[in-house]
Amino acid sequence: MIYFNNDYAEGCHPKVLEALSLTNFNQTPGYGEDVYCAQAAEKIRTLCRRKDAAVHFLVGGTQTNMTVIAAALRPHQGALCAQSGHIHVHETGAVEATGHKVLALPSADGKITAQQVRQAVEAHRSDGSFEHMVQPKLVYISNPTELGTLYTLAELTALSETCRELGLYLFLDGARLGYGLMAKGNDVSLPDIARLCDVFYIGGTKVGALFGEAVVITTPTLKEDFRYIIKQHGGMLAKGRLLGVQFDALLMDNLYFEISAHADALADRLRDTLLSLDVPFLVPGVTNQLFPILPDVVLGKLSEKYVFCEQQRVDEAHRAVRFCTSWATKPEAVDALCDDLRKLLGEN
Amino acid sequence: MIYFNNDYAEGCHPKVLEALSLTNFNQTPGYGEDVYCAQAAEKIRTLCRRKDAAVHFLVGGTQTNMTVIAAALRPHQGALCAQSGHIHVHETGAVEATGHKVLALPSADGKITAQQVRQAVEAHRSDGSFEHMVQPKLVYISNPTELGTLYTLAELTALSETCRELGLYLFLDGARLGYGLMAKGNDVSLPDIARLCDVFYIGGTKVGALFGEAVVITTPTLKEDFRYIIKQHGGMLAKGRLLGVQFDALLMDNLYFEISAHADALADRLRDTLLSLDVPFLVPGVTNQLFPILPDVVLGKLSEKYVFCEQQRVDEAHRAVRFCTSWATKPEAVDALCDDLRKLLGEN
Amino acid sequence: MIYFNNDYAEGCHPKVLEALSLTNFNQTPGYGEDVYCAQAAEKIRTLCRRKDAAVHFLVGGTQTNMTVIAAALRPHQGALCAQSGHIHVHETGAVEATGHKVLALPSADGKITAQQVRQAVEAHRSDGSFEHMVQPKLVYISNPTELGTLYTLAELTALSETCRELGLYLFLDGARLGYGLMAKGNDVSLPDIARLCDVFYIGGTKVGALFGEAVVITTPTLKEDFRYIIKQHGGMLAKGRLLGVQFDALLMDNLYFEISAHADALADRLRDTLLSLDVPFLVPGVTNQLFPILPDVVLGKLSEKYVFCEQQRVDEAHRAVRFCTSWATKPEAVDALCDDLRKLLGEN
Amino acid sequence: MIYFNNDYAEGCHPKVLEALSLTNFNQTPGYGEDVYCAQAAEKIRTLCRRKDAAVHFLVGGTQTNMTVIAAALRPHQGALCAQSGHIHVHETGAVEATGHKVLALPSADGKITAQQVRQAVEAHRSDGSFEHMVQPKLVYISNPTELGTLYTLAELTALSETCRELGLYLFLDGARLGYGLMAKGNDVSLPDIARLCDVFYIGGTKVGALFGEAVVITTPTLKEDFRYIIKQHGGMLAKGRLLGVQFDALLMDNLYFEISAHADALADRLRDTLLSLDVPFLVPGVTNQLFPILPDVVLGKLSEKYVFCEQQRVDEAHRAVRFCTSWATKPEAVDALCDDLRKLLGEN
Repeated sequence: MIYFNNDYAEGCHPKVLEALSLTNFNQTPGYGEDVYCAQAAEKIRTLCRRKDAAVHFLVGGTQTNMTVIAAALRPHQGALCAQSGHIHVHETGAVEATGHKVLALPSADGKITAQQVRQAVEAHRSDGSFEHMVQPKLVYISNPTELGTLYTLAELTALSETCRELGLYLFLDGARLGYGLMAKGNDVSLPDIARLCDVFYIGGTKVGALFGEAVVITTPTLKEDFRYIIKQHGGMLAKGRLLGVQFDALLMDNLYFEISAHADALADRLRDTLLSLDVPFLVPGVTNQLFPILPDVVLGKLSEKYVFCEQQRVDEAHRAVRFCTSWATKPEAVDALCDDLRKLLGEN
Repeated sequence: MIYFNNDYAEGCHPKVLEALSLTNFNQTPGYGEDVYCAQAAEKIRTLCRRKDAAVHFLVGGTQTNMTVIAAALRPHQGALCAQSGHIHVHETGAVEATGHKVLALPSADGKITAQQVRQAVEAHRSDGSFEHMVQPKLVYISNPTELGTLYTLAELTALSETCRELGLYLFLDGARLGYGLMAKGNDVSLPDIARLCDVFYIGGTKVGALFGEAVVITTPTLKEDFRYIIKQHGGMLAKGRLLGVQFDALLMDNLYFEISAHADALADRLRDTLLSLDVPFLVPGVTNQLFPILPDVVLGKLSEKYVFCEQQRVDEAHRAVRFCTSWATKPEAVDALCDDLRKLLGEN
Repeated sequence: MIYFNNDYAEGCHPKVLEALSLTNFNQTPGYGEDVYCAQAAEKIRTLCRRKDAAVHFLVGGTQTNMTVIAAALRPHQGALCAQSGHIHVHETGAVEATGHKVLALPSADGKITAQQVRQAVEAHRSDGSFEHMVQPKLVYISNPTELGTLYTLAELTALSETCRELGLYLFLDGARLGYGLMAKGNDVSLPDIARLCDVFYIGGTKVGALFGEAVVITTPTLKEDFRYIIKQHGGMLAKGRLLGVQFDALLMDNLYFEISAHADALADRLRDTLLSLDVPFLVPGVTNQLFPILPDVVLGKLSEKYVFCEQQRVDEAHRAVRFCTSWATKPEAVDALCDDLRKLLGEN
Repeated sequence: MIYFNNDYAEGCHPKVLEALSLTNFNQTPGYGEDVYCAQAAEKIRTLCRRKDAAVHFLVGGTQTNMTVIAAALRPHQGALCAQSGHIHVHETGAVEATGHKVLALPSADGKITAQQVRQAVEAHRSDGSFEHMVQPKLVYISNPTELGTLYTLAELTALSETCRELGLYLFLDGARLGYGLMAKGNDVSLPDIARLCDVFYIGGTKVGALFGEAVVITTPTLKEDFRYIIKQHGGMLAKGRLLGVQFDALLMDNLYFEISAHADALADRLRDTLLSLDVPFLVPGVTNQLFPILPDVVLGKLSEKYVFCEQQRVDEAHRAVRFCTSWATKPEAVDALCDDLRKLLGEN
């Protein structure tokens, strides 16, 4: 079986493993206060062009999301996000477990707009019983989104300006950030993100690391005592060096970006094939996640050879599914899949 | 100004005040372990025809909702409710502050159906990543709903059967229960509710008491250690007797039901007037809350003499508003309002 | 039986009940936004000589404590208090339920010192793994304490100065504040408390009201959005006017202070009797709570006529118990008890 | 500098790294549902002689403790532990952040007794206001303790019997379990622990893994929905296989036990040296942590070459410090330290 069901089916990029091996017996302080974390953080600050940014390394995405949100909000405040947002749907209520409501906004493509944020905040403020409702204070977006779509620079700028005007934090979940940054047509750079968001993270787990997310905080009020919040939520890795070593390796010689581009290119190849076969998509996308709508009979045959994800039923005979490429995907695996698709959909 | 904006604008029914005065200097144990609470609880058990029910008295609705839900759920479990549900919209995230997600279901009339509950539970169970999502474990309904509508016995029975089949608790918020029980066309009795729900409450705050809600628990697992949960959530009144004395007075000689019927009759009078003037309603209703859609110009004139609640804008020239009657509403106040409506809408 | 077991065995002072009756049918806005709350708040600001203070009325003590602490702390911060502090011992973990650790300090008399606070903060800051420990950020004291003792002005001033120097909030639980203010030998005034604390409350439940605590906030950062936090924790009374009416009545013509002085005088009478009989005390006190150590046999006989509280066993034949007087205690009840004590202890 | 300050200063045992490398490109399902986790779990069940045990792998200790406790307790329940317990002192209030109070018991050596547990539970139950206090429901112990001491089989059996009699869960934190199991004089086996505890974990982070703790649950009620709780608390590693691979490697050919014995033997060598030099200890111990009390002047000189942990000041001229050995400690490092100690303490 070939796995296209997600982008975390393998271990890590060989250079990451190599770095872990090379540093294995070096003795370091624990809890991220080692030289590798310092080095990796410095590289990130340079890439982001934010010398003042605080950089923290956490193990996984849910942990990162709940830690950032718990650090940012007072008890009566909530996080606005798309109804498809990871924190709303797929984190078993981790944000609610820290006491905060997730305020979901309708969205067809996984994105929310500056206007939606403004409306939500104004609706709250102008309501006579506003104290009886959760106060929106943070906007959570993911980029790429859970549906593989991307914010344009104009959209992100509008969100940022609206958040600043209204006094909300803008938090970008970059679990798949590499795949977004390197996608065809993307016009948002890492320095843009660092400039426009108050806090965001650069995902490692899905982009070449064994695990790890690098949180970048640019807004001073969010920096304060952040390490306490990490520790309290179980996110302070004893051998924090493992995160530093991995990000240091990923950020050396452009590796993170190259392996991201690799995944995007293979996704494009698969996407082009599907488009050439007139396969419709649940949402159009440019990153490493594809959501084609395929006949059940085709999916049945594909599932004998490939593993992919169920997304949703579209009609009686069709389902939308998810195929992911990743830093580890082999070109020949994509080629095989493309061939099979051509055969199956030619037959159809 | 005459207040029609809610059903808690006055103090309490004179008989309640009289009972408080009569018992004022009697010395009793604190925290609800007094004879008045015992008496009132016994009356409630009799009215509900559930000798095995546990009865607890709390001060207010939000407190009651968060206490019941916190008592019922494990950390990863959530409460299904209508998107207009009080716990979802108007409690400043009190349920989330106890760590639990509110899982909102679409609803036009404030009610949810057995089928919606079944779908939500089945969608959760059949999803491959179900452990990544909050587990539905309790269904929260309000009756009357926040929109003044009522569940029929058939609807409530279906909800109850579905919950029992699927292992969910059914919790009925009865903040305005009296107004529901006495409404024209209602076919649900107090024993029905006690039989069909796992836990519910009989609202006092909006039905003749200074404050107070009587929680009735019929399901054994929910009874255990409930008083600890009350205390932990700040709901254990030192002079708990005040709650017992009030409910004892309200439940004497049918008072609770008579004053509820009074409010419903006045609401019917207002409703009939509005209907006779061809005023549309946001939702049809039979209880003490009315949601007519009126022209802005009419509302502007009404607001010089009456206080009512903004509900929502319907179009450029019309808004839906809320008028409430209550146990304390004077017939002449309703008559004056009806006269003014006739004049203003005749003019229009 | 005559109840000396606590100071909340009766309803309320007749003038409070009278005020509730007189205002009963006046229509007001809900949730504390009525004229009675405004009036009572203004009286409190005047008594405290703090025109800038925010005043909020809550129903009970546990609710108030958890609301204030939740409003004040970020997730990783905790509250320092005496090991006998109400929040540590007798609130079923209400503070922990809002996510915060109570950091208990040793104390024999219910009080803590400025030096203890300084040591706790310095120990935290100087520890190499400080981020692995809860950060002390608020000092909770009760005055009178749970053991009936009082802070002197010098002690309170030292605590306040230390808290300000170290960046901690000082929160005074005044559930029995009246009994402290009027106690013989007390040198702390209400304006002193308002000047030295960041937030405190004036207890009504135990001092003449049916229920109610008046929270006074002097520090700007604690004022922000406080009503949201009240609502979220179930403390926003629908008929908030009930709190305003009661405090307004209690603060009229010096009533609150007179009834407090009444209780203290009766406590003094009982204390003098016990002292004249050479009865030792668990802690010396000057307020309405007494903790004499009495022989089991005497307690056995007393318990046939009087209700009092078990505090702790002192030795095989003696227990410390609690006797409380209150605004409602009748002089003849104290006289009867004194007589019986003289008889029983003379016999002994 | 040579690090003796903790047992997590290096990466992992070479065989663990080798296993990670060998499996790196194998594709597996995420979130711990892979074959490596299944294999490792099976080995653990075999070692524990509990075929019915549920085994879950988490990343770190704090995460594990808060997840287990959150899974076990209802909101009003708390965890009893020694005042030196990791959950009480060094987890930044992680347990409180899940809403639960830690109920600390006095302890000089890091252990608590069955009698202390019984007294705490009985004191709670017999108190008239028990509902106003947190209900003890779980006993947290660490073995080895934070002070390097060990429970005997008799002590652990007594604790277990008391917990079962009183209806409490017994949870053993085995962050350093290997070092305990292999310590000279230890009479507790892994099957004993599995038989006597309801839940415990086998620590990997400090015993040869990069990270990871294996939770073993024997009691059915604790098994239910445990994976939801892991996910909600951010502990579900996307590439869960990494935990399975590591534990599988550690549990192959007795490796876990051999490397534990290695650390213990080196600790014994250091301990014997200190004892032969008449150095007193803060607590006597038999595992890989030593707490000698040494003169400041000696410590000053040692600190030029060695890194160790400050524990506490003992008197004006002496401090207790912590030296740790680990699976990675080199014999020559211990020998060097012993030599230096002999020289410095001979001089002294």
